[in-house]
Amino acid sequence: MTKQNLLDCHKRIAPFIHNTSVLTSRLIDKEVNAQVFFKCENFQRAGAYKMRGATNAILRLPKEQKKNGVVTHSSGNFAQALSLAAQSVGVTAHIVMPNTAPEVKKVGVKEYGGIIYECEPTVEARQALADEIALKTGATFIHPSNDNDVILGQGTTALELLEKQPDLDFIFCPVGGGGLIAGSALAAHYFGINCKVYGAEPFEADDAYRSLQSGKIESNETVNTIADGLKTTLGDKNFPIIKKLVSGIVRVTEEEIVDAMKLVWERMKIIIEPSSAVTVAAVLKQSKEQPAVFQNKKIGIIISGGNVDLSKLPF
Amino acid sequence: MTKQNLLDCHKRIAPFIHNTSVLTSRLIDKEVNAQVFFKCENFQRAGAYKMRGATNAILRLPKEQKKNGVVTHSSGNFAQALSLAAQSVGVTAHIVMPNTAPEVKKVGVKEYGGIIYECEPTVEARQALADEIALKTGATFIHPSNDNDVILGQGTTALELLEKQPDLDFIFCPVGGGGLIAGSALAAHYFGINCKVYGAEPFEADDAYRSLQSGKIESNETVNTIADGLKTTLGDKNFPIIKKLVSGIVRVTEEEIVDAMKLVWERMKIIIEPSSAVTVAAVLKQSKEQPAVFQNKKIGIIISGGNVDLSKLPF
Repeated sequence: MTKQNLLDCHKRIAPFIHNTSVLTSRLIDKEVNAQVFFKCENFQRAGAYKMRGATNAILRLPKEQKKNGVVTHSSGNFAQALSLAAQSVGVTAHIVMPNTAPEVKKVGVKEYGGIIYECEPTVEARQALADEIALKTGATFIHPSNDNDVILGQGTTALELLEKQPDLDFIFCPVGGGGLIAGSALAAHYFGINCKVYGAEPFEADDAYRSLQSGKIESNETVNTIADGLKTTLGDKNFPIIKKLVSGIVRVTEEEIVDAMKLVWERMKIIIEPSSAVTVAAVLKQSKEQPAVFQNKKIGIIISGGNVDLSKLPF
Repeated sequence: MTKQNLLDCHKRIAPFIHNTSVLTSRLIDKEVNAQVFFKCENFQRAGAYKMRGATNAILRLPKEQKKNGVVTHSSGNFAQALSLAAQSVGVTAHIVMPNTAPEVKKVGVKEYGGIIYECEPTVEARQALADEIALKTGATFIHPSNDNDVILGQGTTALELLEKQPDLDFIFCPVGGGGLIAGSALAAHYFGINCKVYGAEPFEADDAYRSLQSGKIESNETVNTIADGLKTTLGDKNFPIIKKLVSGIVRVTEEEIVDAMKLVWERMKIIIEPSSAVTVAAVLKQSKEQPAVFQNKKIGIIISGGNVDLSKLPF
């Protein structure tokens, strides 16, 4: 994927997305002893960066294919993002969701015009139902993270951040399925000035950390983490990019995640979801463990989303 | 107070405050059938607009008086704001707080370098102790809302909002002690183009509504409201301005306050305190009760602050 691919993608999706704010915090700068720039995708449409990749993937479909709609399986932000992206573009979205998905997420999908199909909460059942729908309706399956058009779309987040702050030394972002970090790494590679990209993961779902160690895609046996967006594993399209362009992955504990989330809510007055708090926690941790590396540097943090269930807060 | 007073005040305090963001929300625009501009003082230093008035009041003191420090009584945002403002300017802040004040507020004051004096939680005890400190230390007493320099400082919020969005038809802001709404009304008068200012109050503490009806300052017998910043009553310095320049006050129920707070948290992903939710609730209510008045108009909402105790949320 080239520099031009990224620029074209950004131009293509720009009418459908927000160029979200970049916020700063004196308090966090002081804690980290560096300048931190928060790219606020919690303010993105549908509450997360996923809107970018979803929109790009749909817009890239040939006219004929668009008519038949799109299908995906997701219990989280991508379900809402694909529904809203499809609605914005005038395309039907079929969304396979596990029957255990929270009511609030189903409501979100319906509000954005997505058609919900419920299935048993297993990877096999999800994929089987999605395949069946694709076969019946002719809808195109769009993967939430392991798809080149999705990766490019997610990369526009870091692209916009670097447009506003071209001299970032680091960009930190969370790692779930790998779409966001692969896109961010491409953007930093093409548009940064020696800008290193780091991933952030919970210890409880550190598959990407282990994948970078072993050189092949690893999975998680258990995923006991509050960061519900980071339970998925990398894919064969994004892993090669990550292996080549990402400088490392920082792991954090559940306690560090909750503390970072509370810090941002209390001090910055913005609502970030646990998956985004993972990234903030990673920066706070690195700045303590390796203060010299960060001192007086400029760090971008991608706040991936702000979709939380207010009735189930960890504090 | 003149147009020039407001401009001078803004210039004076600018190095010490943030010119906070103005946010918009498609969803809320749709609900209200108008364009709404949120002036985000929850992003202000110390988490509320109070920093503006506090800074102006301190900076206006003669050099000799600054040396002896300042004193106030407050259990809320003004205590933290005066402490931080004093610290920024290099002045001592003596803060009288009721011994019932939440620990988190005391921690905030201490963090900003304020010296805390505890007293019984009555208006008389507060004022008596503040007077005693003023006498002993020579510190100047600064009232949180009934002080011309404080009113001017708070007015810079609406001034900045009108600088960014000069064609607002309405500005809504909460009414507690009256400093913010008096300042906003002055700013709208001098810098707006026929911009009407409305106040928002809980039914449970509707002293300002009743004061505008009777023509004299009324008080509240009870204040059973979640909007802890709006329990105070107007003063003799701000009431004449309010009487002259404010178009009306909209009252909302406790349920409407909590619903509005939830809506903003969930959809705009920003943390606003109940006192700010009162204003949002008032706009939502007016747009339903008098849709024709708001249709296609431009409405500014002053989000007064974001200081909430995360362990005591109403949802």
